[in-house]
Amino acid sequence: MSHSLPAPPPPEQSSALLTDHYELTMVQAALRSGAASRRCVFETFARRLPDGRRYGVVAGTGRLLQAIEQFRFRAPEIAALRAGKVVDEETIGFLAGYRFEGDITGYAEGEAYFPGSPVLVVESDFAHGVVLETLVLSILNHDSAIASAASRMTAAAGTRPCIEMGSRRTHEEAAVAAARAAYIAGFATTSNLEASRRWGVPTAGTAAHAFTLLHDDEREAFAAQVEALGVGTTLLVDTYDVERAVAIAVEVAGPQLGAVRLDSGDLLVQAREVREQLDSLGATSTRIVVTSDLDEFAIAALAAGPVDAYGVGTQLVTGSGAPTAGMVYKLVARADDSGELVGVAKASKDKTSLGGRKFALRRRNARGVAEAEIIGIGEPPADDGGGRGDDRALLVDFVRDGHIVGGAHTALDVARDRHEASMAELPRSSHQLSRGEPAIPTLYV
Amino acid sequence: MSHSLPAPPPPEQSSALLTDHYELTMVQAALRSGAASRRCVFETFARRLPDGRRYGVVAGTGRLLQAIEQFRFRAPEIAALRAGKVVDEETIGFLAGYRFEGDITGYAEGEAYFPGSPVLVVESDFAHGVVLETLVLSILNHDSAIASAASRMTAAAGTRPCIEMGSRRTHEEAAVAAARAAYIAGFATTSNLEASRRWGVPTAGTAAHAFTLLHDDEREAFAAQVEALGVGTTLLVDTYDVERAVAIAVEVAGPQLGAVRLDSGDLLVQAREVREQLDSLGATSTRIVVTSDLDEFAIAALAAGPVDAYGVGTQLVTGSGAPTAGMVYKLVARADDSGELVGVAKASKDKTSLGGRKFALRRRNARGVAEAEIIGIGEPPADDGGGRGDDRALLVDFVRDGHIVGGAHTALDVARDRHEASMAELPRSSHQLSRGEPAIPTLYV
Repeated sequence: MSHSLPAPPPPEQSSALLTDHYELTMVQAALRSGAASRRCVFETFARRLPDGRRYGVVAGTGRLLQAIEQFRFRAPEIAALRAGKVVDEETIGFLAGYRFEGDITGYAEGEAYFPGSPVLVVESDFAHGVVLETLVLSILNHDSAIASAASRMTAAAGTRPCIEMGSRRTHEEAAVAAARAAYIAGFATTSNLEASRRWGVPTAGTAAHAFTLLHDDEREAFAAQVEALGVGTTLLVDTYDVERAVAIAVEVAGPQLGAVRLDSGDLLVQAREVREQLDSLGATSTRIVVTSDLDEFAIAALAAGPVDAYGVGTQLVTGSGAPTAGMVYKLVARADDSGELVGVAKASKDKTSLGGRKFALRRRNARGVAEAEIIGIGEPPADDGGGRGDDRALLVDFVRDGHIVGGAHTALDVARDRHEASMAELPRSSHQLSRGEPAIPTLYV
Repeated sequence: MSHSLPAPPPPEQSSALLTDHYELTMVQAALRSGAASRRCVFETFARRLPDGRRYGVVAGTGRLLQAIEQFRFRAPEIAALRAGKVVDEETIGFLAGYRFEGDITGYAEGEAYFPGSPVLVVESDFAHGVVLETLVLSILNHDSAIASAASRMTAAAGTRPCIEMGSRRTHEEAAVAAARAAYIAGFATTSNLEASRRWGVPTAGTAAHAFTLLHDDEREAFAAQVEALGVGTTLLVDTYDVERAVAIAVEVAGPQLGAVRLDSGDLLVQAREVREQLDSLGATSTRIVVTSDLDEFAIAALAAGPVDAYGVGTQLVTGSGAPTAGMVYKLVARADDSGELVGVAKASKDKTSLGGRKFALRRRNARGVAEAEIIGIGEPPADDGGGRGDDRALLVDFVRDGHIVGGAHTALDVARDRHEASMAELPRSSHQLSRGEPAIPTLYV
């Protein structure tokens, strides 16, 4: 409780109960033992990447900083804790005055990460740091899982745009966060309107089979859509017979028709047939959008086809087989009685639990290609410079003495640019979709 | 727009933008073509269960009814639509006055479902029904995925309680919904405090390794926890050496110690050793709680061990391999020019797309065991009665003329009881964890 600051006006929403019961009972016990005020370092990291993945992508930090600002126990939250008999009155007194008063550093949003990368480092007294555990992990584990999957998809898509359309296959609020994470990792647009309002992600949309089925026939449906939305719209052409639908679509909209969408069948074969048909009808600039349970492998398989854009849903919002990044939040150092920080770790046979505050840099060779994730324990690793390359420190400041100072690192377009730069610097093998080892080794020094 | 009603006071929060862009552009096009006012039936169903699963469990309906109440385009939502140039002014006029004015029926929360079960049926004009698609699917797909996984876990656990502790491995709001869904499917408690405030799910908590590491030694940590939380608390005994920790735990708390928690290692072997040690120390009523990436298979494997409770995290909140229920929302019937409802469906080689309004009952034999999911198309299937059994109609009323009438079907304890009853009625083979076919066939009549 060292960095005391005047309280700002209370935030509109509270994130404080998005928290595990035991975080608060640990505060109660630590207040009682006196250890609550011990200076501590908590570290967020992934022990491993999802099976066969070669890198992960950090996302969610911008959302997390907002949620930490809103981490306040106001009257309604206090009433809930009393009603649930969660903690005693001394602890409630502490929580009622809580605002985070420590320092947070970490990897900037959009950055690649590897096993052991100290993605977020929280330094504060025990009580201030431990209560953030659940919130930190919920946000970083979800958003990083989505960004990591999205990054493989945009890599597979190359210069062709990917459209995020998975809202219906995940929790309604997770959908908004997923759209944001996908945008960071290179998706062009989302279908989710709230992601546009809240985060400025551009939205796009086509039409559903229901719209065609609503009308007496396809021609009527297409005419209605073109009249309402213009010839630049995207017509869904697989409700009945694709060839017939494409003919009607061009008849109705003319060769300036924006795009057609295919949502079923053998997309590669169909895209080729539709491209040929569109060209023969003079609709040479009409684009072909494909959807239908795409993942990074299906996208890669369609590279050979005349496809102009990929709509990705389920597999994006479920992390393409890895719906959580599996990061943990561990106490790695705490002050002893003399106030000195000492490294701490659980004794473990099978888990990598290294005590001590971590620092990180990405070692790059003379051509700027990443070679290793260098983790310094207790002190920053030395940039070995000397012409070997251009090592890059990875930790940026997010919060100093309870104040957010790192907003610039989490602005959405900045994060999107960083993802692109971070990807460009990884060795080429990173972007192989096949299962393999992490693209660069993690070295502890 | 047949069921016009006086507008109630505006809801506090709006769920209206948790929606795909194309739902609103379809409304715009349908308003233009005149088809927006055609009477329609939209059906939510799963074409199949996740690979090898034998049944699914419906959850989320209670949350959905709230979200439909909040589905209003207030001034901020309208401003966002204008800023994003999503739809034209005529459509904005419609949306500004929108409140759902139709009927909704469906499976009650906690009920088992099978491929093709009409889990939710929305009847209204096109415009009123189509805009709910994304929200309906987001909520039902997420919550049903969690409840379906949770149900297998509680079945495997038998009479031993399961504790939901997965908040940190999923989106922070999805975590609250997951705790609710798990409770419906038989979980005893959750770690998530917001789930307690919002839904009344009981919470529980133990302590983390950080709490032990914070203190100078294990004895000090245990003493602090016992002093603060009483001897009924759960001590985490695997930070350093389990045997030593158990000895210290009983020394500190006495034989009345509530429980010890094991979070790593070979849980079956360790539970046996710890049980023996606890008994030898006279702590015969001290319970053993196990955690550490449990899923339904690990829970089943621990049935032979002296385990008193299971803490389940990652695998619960990610649906144990099936993070979305994969339900779709399809237009299955709409009025023709004469106002008559006609069944409609996409032409499809590989997908089950059956037009027509569906009704459902569960056929049960004379011993009350479920035998088949009977789906009537266009009219309710006849209860074949005649002593064969006690068939049970599955659709309940949720919304009539825009008014929620089905709140009773979604009260949390009612849903939890229904889950238990629905499980008891399924054939025994339903609860095998091995991969198989759906427990009962879906028959269309």
